[in-house]
Amino acid sequence: MYEVLVAESFEAAHRLVGDFGPATRVHGHTYRVEVAVRGERLGDDGTLYDLGKLGENVKGLAAELHYRNLDEVEGLAGKNTTAEAVADFVWERLAKTLAGSGLSSLTVRVWENPNACAAREDRLPG
Amino acid sequence: MYEVLVAESFEAAHRLVGDFGPATRVHGHTYRVEVAVRGERLGDDGTLYDLGKLGENVKGLAAELHYRNLDEVEGLAGKNTTAEAVADFVWERLAKTLAGSGLSSLTVRVWENPNACAAREDRLPG
Amino acid sequence: MYEVLVAESFEAAHRLVGDFGPATRVHGHTYRVEVAVRGERLGDDGTLYDLGKLGENVKGLAAELHYRNLDEVEGLAGKNTTAEAVADFVWERLAKTLAGSGLSSLTVRVWENPNACAAREDRLPG
Repeated sequence: MYEVLVAESFEAAHRLVGDFGPATRVHGHTYRVEVAVRGERLGDDGTLYDLGKLGENVKGLAAELHYRNLDEVEGLAGKNTTAEAVADFVWERLAKTLAGSGLSSLTVRVWENPNACAAREDRLPG
Repeated sequence: MYEVLVAESFEAAHRLVGDFGPATRVHGHTYRVEVAVRGERLGDDGTLYDLGKLGENVKGLAAELHYRNLDEVEGLAGKNTTAEAVADFVWERLAKTLAGSGLSSLTVRVWENPNACAAREDRLPG
Repeated sequence: MYEVLVAESFEAAHRLVGDFGPATRVHGHTYRVEVAVRGERLGDDGTLYDLGKLGENVKGLAAELHYRNLDEVEGLAGKNTTAEAVADFVWERLAKTLAGSGLSSLTVRVWENPNACAAREDRLPG
């Protein structure tokens, strides 16, 4: 099994609703998002999936979230913007681009800081 | 599948017994322990498991091991305090806290330095 | 399940052939290679596999690739030296050493920089 992974950062504000103590105050993070795809075979060009192309996709998504309040971003507004929810948001967006590419699974990992992250990992539609 | 992960550090001494060369001398590391839990569904609050709550648990365990000689810690004394053994120790302690929480698995990763680690990953009791 | 992992770095030049934009120019990276082995049980000495011994193997391989042009290294010459191909090269070399050691799988992860990597993960021959 092969995997390729790219990472990007963005800086954004958010707050949680519920029993989350100081995290219910508006605050922010330098988020790091790691995106990994998996598959069984390399192509004739020696890649599973072009790192540069995957990097451009992730860079675009990170740019959309940079210097934003996540609680106001379409697709996140109205939800609790936990790291899990942000991973979900990125996963759904990238899965649309990657479906049908022959890759078997997609993992999106969202770090709020170097000591805390959430991830979603699921199979990609064929 | 979702995962949340938190990390903490502690500084401790230890020595190995057996054919381990310089590691048989008393020495120490700035250990980094990463704890990840996995599960299938997010709760209504948008979390798999509250990162803050998991962080408090891991912080407490790291504090117990900080500035100690691992070879004298109850639960490790009498064992060879390899990174695998430390991962085991932390796994067993956290599994007691997390069992029955609906999470499917627990991974504990113990870094002795940024270039060497051991991990234990196993299903949690339901 | 247990895992142990070691990492080493090497600095090397390469170029890609094909539709890879600026990556078709001769350039280079400070590569970081992470090698992880997995297995079910710890030995009587408290290890899955001696971190020091695994580290020596990986250090030797990294030394072979250090300050080289990967496109001229035997086993890589004639291939597109993508991160996937480098992971493959390291995987095949280490699998020969580790086969029959009772370990179940081997993962080799090759970082071209802190934001891009490729990995190969497969079962080891028994």
